[in-house]
Amino acid sequence: MFITFEGIEGTGKTTQIARLKEYFESRGRAVHLTREPGGSRVGRELRQMLLHVDNADLTPITELFLYLADRAQHVAQVIRPQLEAGRVVLCDRFADSTIVYQGFGRGLDTAILKQLNEVAVDGVWPDLTIVLDIDPEVGLKRATLRNLDDGKAKEEGRFEAEHISFHRRIREGYLTWAALNRDRIRVADASATPDEVFARVKALIETHLPDLA
Amino acid sequence: MFITFEGIEGTGKTTQIARLKEYFESRGRAVHLTREPGGSRVGRELRQMLLHVDNADLTPITELFLYLADRAQHVAQVIRPQLEAGRVVLCDRFADSTIVYQGFGRGLDTAILKQLNEVAVDGVWPDLTIVLDIDPEVGLKRATLRNLDDGKAKEEGRFEAEHISFHRRIREGYLTWAALNRDRIRVADASATPDEVFARVKALIETHLPDLA
Repeated sequence: MFITFEGIEGTGKTTQIARLKEYFESRGRAVHLTREPGGSRVGRELRQMLLHVDNADLTPITELFLYLADRAQHVAQVIRPQLEAGRVVLCDRFADSTIVYQGFGRGLDTAILKQLNEVAVDGVWPDLTIVLDIDPEVGLKRATLRNLDDGKAKEEGRFEAEHISFHRRIREGYLTWAALNRDRIRVADASATPDEVFARVKALIETHLPDLA
Repeated sequence: MFITFEGIEGTGKTTQIARLKEYFESRGRAVHLTREPGGSRVGRELRQMLLHVDNADLTPITELFLYLADRAQHVAQVIRPQLEAGRVVLCDRFADSTIVYQGFGRGLDTAILKQLNEVAVDGVWPDLTIVLDIDPEVGLKRATLRNLDDGKAKEEGRFEAEHISFHRRIREGYLTWAALNRDRIRVADASATPDEVFARVKALIETHLPDLA
């Protein structure tokens, strides 16, 4: 089983995914937790390249191809082998991020992005994708504070440095994309406390992947 | 005018391109010399990633997307602005390398590669492409000696480390691809002395780009 989490910056994806891992493990399941960009060895170098504020000069197309390279390597070296070993794979961002950020965010053609994603994922699509949804003003404030706390304002801050209107387009993009793919993508309101949000995440797992819950 | 040089390792591309630059400059033309991978600032990081022998674990698809990222950034930040400024741009490897190495070499679909190249080059195709052709055994020996001389056997040696049969496929791929694109791509025998090879290069320029010669 392959479950991905999506959403704008500061929705609490990291917290929820860690809780879901604990939950599955408490029920005796082996879990592999990973993320994009940066889920493979080469991917960690690509993550630095993609998220560092000094690389604001990346063109939208360059950015797109770097994410796809990261994904192709991640699927081949990490996700597919972990799934084949029988583990539940939880991934913080995956192919839908490319559709939403590069398509709805940067204005690239979503049909082409879908085709390129097919090349990169090579058949490995998530069984369930949970979009954590929050007001971009709230999310951005959380993400910026977290990066300051971590001392990573420059290293990981390229997207946080985008104008609020960009983050609004991303949020709307996620809601549109989820509505177009209701068989796989579900939205959870992430404005409540972490406990309340996790209850919603668990409910989605119980409904859509009953064998796992 | 945009002229690219192609060929397997050790054909003498670097030497010929430097001589052509001198030749054009002696006739009062402004020339910008560049190369792939690594023609832009971010591209130089990608070049290290792509050519280092430690990255033998890159999948063919990952490799493909990294080259395309490098190309998209190179076209946007270097090639297009230099052409618009009226300079002759000479480039050591370009889009045809992707078709030949990832297509004929790694077995990816050349039709898909052509479409992906279109996305990366964004309309900026060479006016003339010169393939320097040589027996792979000779070329590979030259390239390996050069990397040893430069102390770059590890940093730039990932392709030289491929089996000779790979280099034979690449050479044949170049000849096939050139035959399929005779309007733009011309082959020059590179087995002679540098002076003789340069005479052939100059003859190709005189025939195909008479305004420049």
